[in-house]
Amino acid sequence: MNIGILGAGQLAQMLALAGYPLGLRCTFLAPEEAPCAAPLGRHHRGDYQNSAALAAFADSVDVATAEFEHIAQVALEGLEDRGLLAPCSEAILLSQERLQEKSLFTRLGLPTARYAPIDTEADFNSALDVAGTPAILKTRRMGYDGKGQASVAAVADLLPAWESLGRVPCILEARVPFERELSVIAVRSRDGECRVWPLSENQHEAGILRVSRSLSNDPMEGLAQGYCERLLEALNYVGVLALELFQCGDELLVNEYAPRVHNSGHWTIEGAVTSQFENHLRAIAGLPLGATAAVAPSVMVNVIGQWPSARDILAVPGAHLHDYGKSPAPGRKLGHITLVDHDAEALRQGTAELCRLVGVAGEG
Amino acid sequence: MNIGILGAGQLAQMLALAGYPLGLRCTFLAPEEAPCAAPLGRHHRGDYQNSAALAAFADSVDVATAEFEHIAQVALEGLEDRGLLAPCSEAILLSQERLQEKSLFTRLGLPTARYAPIDTEADFNSALDVAGTPAILKTRRMGYDGKGQASVAAVADLLPAWESLGRVPCILEARVPFERELSVIAVRSRDGECRVWPLSENQHEAGILRVSRSLSNDPMEGLAQGYCERLLEALNYVGVLALELFQCGDELLVNEYAPRVHNSGHWTIEGAVTSQFENHLRAIAGLPLGATAAVAPSVMVNVIGQWPSARDILAVPGAHLHDYGKSPAPGRKLGHITLVDHDAEALRQGTAELCRLVGVAGEG
Repeated sequence: MNIGILGAGQLAQMLALAGYPLGLRCTFLAPEEAPCAAPLGRHHRGDYQNSAALAAFADSVDVATAEFEHIAQVALEGLEDRGLLAPCSEAILLSQERLQEKSLFTRLGLPTARYAPIDTEADFNSALDVAGTPAILKTRRMGYDGKGQASVAAVADLLPAWESLGRVPCILEARVPFERELSVIAVRSRDGECRVWPLSENQHEAGILRVSRSLSNDPMEGLAQGYCERLLEALNYVGVLALELFQCGDELLVNEYAPRVHNSGHWTIEGAVTSQFENHLRAIAGLPLGATAAVAPSVMVNVIGQWPSARDILAVPGAHLHDYGKSPAPGRKLGHITLVDHDAEALRQGTAELCRLVGVAGEG
Repeated sequence: MNIGILGAGQLAQMLALAGYPLGLRCTFLAPEEAPCAAPLGRHHRGDYQNSAALAAFADSVDVATAEFEHIAQVALEGLEDRGLLAPCSEAILLSQERLQEKSLFTRLGLPTARYAPIDTEADFNSALDVAGTPAILKTRRMGYDGKGQASVAAVADLLPAWESLGRVPCILEARVPFERELSVIAVRSRDGECRVWPLSENQHEAGILRVSRSLSNDPMEGLAQGYCERLLEALNYVGVLALELFQCGDELLVNEYAPRVHNSGHWTIEGAVTSQFENHLRAIAGLPLGATAAVAPSVMVNVIGQWPSARDILAVPGAHLHDYGKSPAPGRKLGHITLVDHDAEALRQGTAELCRLVGVAGEG
């Protein structure tokens, strides 16, 4: 079976690597000349809006999926009309627009931070009434890795924040005094079976994920999994989805979802019986889902911007290196490293060493 | 770093898959038009004896290794002279010839079944005196998967056995009343560090490996590991080596070694912290070795000749499918399936189901 992937970055690369042993081969549509996934499959070079490129891509695949959500509606619907797309266009399109996404959460009874739309300056007062301060102003579209966000500590910050974001449609969200950032990764099959991995606890710096830890039997797991399953059912979702959450006391606030495999689930490659990549492929290919249980507690550390030496990384006992083969650039995700260990002290020591190597605060 | 591999079958394919996340890319030299590893790297099509093909291959790689041992001396020595080959040509060449291989074991004090060479009919009596009957007559060269062997139940069988093998140079080996067939996989780094995986217990049918099980703290582990390390040291070996053993009571008889990754070590992909494929690459690339501890007990079942449905395989809880992408043919290794589970009963049930699916006797 030939799996079409919109995009050919590291997520597509890891999907292709997971597909190989299953006998699945990947075809990528991406505008870049030499994206990092390209050597692992067939690369159609073209824009996602280019109808000829899309048609050639669609002609060559049995099912199509995406490694990122910012894809034009016309492209998604074209693939859907041909019966190729998984997950469905609705799930991808809703995730492109924060107001629609948050409204969906509200409709489904999933608690969120207080939020209100801002289209013009006339909306400022009503939005501040709802969200209060401190708040975060976020563009409704094209936000990722902390991009398209501005802090609103006090009322007077709102106008300059909106100016800094280009006066585009936004939402104002209450800043949540969370104790933990969590995510839950789940997969749903074509016949509606859901499986959920153990929770991830995530640590960001400057809006970019730096460290994810898998959590064993976390007290919030049942609640988070329930929210995620409600979302998957509502979207009649097929494939892997990641739901980001803030924990405030014994409450979970839903932040956003990604209709795809997710950086906070990379630990599942070595740390779970079946990885998010393999189960995404199994789901969209109509194959039985694999077990999502953890093998042992895991920690994943991202490599951002530049590489420490591979020799130093691999000298850390149990370190699993994932080099995406991308050229270094500030803020660019170049790879990740995973540790999986039942021994909590060994895991802590290894993580501290990896955090030191990649220059992240670590155990924070 | 570019890793050159002589051969482009499933072992090369799994090496390439393991190399990808390490940032290692593979180049294959193989005479086939479309060998199964080819899509994962660069394929030089050519014979292993073709000096132009070998030169082009050598020019394009930083280190060279082999996925099989039956390679001409001139090819191996050419690569060695350029400082590219790991393991060394001596280790590969000795394994090509059973008499030299067994003589090495004897020199190193590793116990073997009684054996004697047969070059002409004049050697029959002395060989029978040493090996006795029942015995097995084996060609000295090109034996694998039970090929090049003939049974010698009684003295009168020896001549027809030798005729059936084409009157080529052979060795006559005593047939060993073994209780278990075992193998030990080990890796040695460029600076001489050895790491050994837990033992595999192997089940063959018609000379072909069908099932391997990893053994936890087996009583024979220390002895087997000691033998293997003695061999690695003697050969100044770099990379992964598999040593096959027969257990007779509390004794281990060394049968043969493979100077490469080995089918009985495929369970290490999911069942060990670091797989044999990754550690072979780490060793030959001069990187630190990864941990060889088991994650949990594992069973690997080979898929020979034809495929059961992927759906049925993946419905077995925890099943990891490895489809090499080869066209089915009688006796051909098409893939394997691995189960890894701390729960002995779940592992037993899953194994029984997989054995039923692939048509192997199973728990024998």
